[in-house]
Amino acid sequence: MSATTLNAAPAILTPEDLLAHWQGHRKLTRRVIEAFPEKELFEFTIGGMRTFALLVAEMATIATGIDGLAYGKWNNFEEKHKEVEALKTKAELLAYWDELTDQLNAAWPALTPERLRTVDNSWGFYEGPVVFILQYFVDNEIHHRGQGYVYLRALGIEPPAFYER
Amino acid sequence: MSATTLNAAPAILTPEDLLAHWQGHRKLTRRVIEAFPEKELFEFTIGGMRTFALLVAEMATIATGIDGLAYGKWNNFEEKHKEVEALKTKAELLAYWDELTDQLNAAWPALTPERLRTVDNSWGFYEGPVVFILQYFVDNEIHHRGQGYVYLRALGIEPPAFYER
Repeated sequence: MSATTLNAAPAILTPEDLLAHWQGHRKLTRRVIEAFPEKELFEFTIGGMRTFALLVAEMATIATGIDGLAYGKWNNFEEKHKEVEALKTKAELLAYWDELTDQLNAAWPALTPERLRTVDNSWGFYEGPVVFILQYFVDNEIHHRGQGYVYLRALGIEPPAFYER
Repeated sequence: MSATTLNAAPAILTPEDLLAHWQGHRKLTRRVIEAFPEKELFEFTIGGMRTFALLVAEMATIATGIDGLAYGKWNNFEEKHKEVEALKTKAELLAYWDELTDQLNAAWPALTPERLRTVDNSWGFYEGPVVFILQYFVDNEIHHRGQGYVYLRALGIEPPAFYER
């Protein structure tokens, strides 16, 4: 294949597309957190599952992996998770969420196409190209947020529209 | 930017990566369908939501959009949805699912980087690059499958591990 051919092929997804995709989902998750009444956010559960606050704690802890994605610096997952788990009001949880939003934006320039194709290991849990790790982070958030939708419906609360980001 | 620079930049995600990602999720969804008892698949619901069979009907109907993604041929969504909705056994639903798996694989070669960046309109619902439409399809499946996990837990059934594809 000649350089011209490669030159003509557009990038399917750019680093900016990937950031916008994740932040779009994070905005929706934020609205789902907001939709929960304070008490039910930390107490309501179905079928022995975690509360939505604990599912959010997992999503937020995973998002603290941004320094892993961007620079290969993986923090202590358990420690970070305890830090988020200790937040006991919706306002604190949302403030933590918003701080992560800024951290993601700030670190993103390091996520070049080269970095995104570099094989790394996320907390010893999964080894693969950074972009696959990123996909897993977002997929996991969508998965657990979808569960929050069921909690809201069971509580008689209309969740935000899935397609609005 | 010189052609050499572009040449040196690896594709962040290839069409093959995107197919493997979706099919991996579809395999997991298939296992979630299998995990439901026949009766509960078509009858169980929480908070006035759709049954898991109806959520699967939506995912499957969306996947019939493969000819839209690949060739810009968008079928009649409502008609297709009625076709899937008419399937009233788990075996029929799984057979329909497997047929779609083959259709996706067969059409994928048409999803070149150029096609994936082409702006199209999915059933008049969303207009944007084909790759964004594809991301929406997969995200929607993850979202509703996550809801199926809650149904299974509420039924006292252990769902398949999310990270196994």
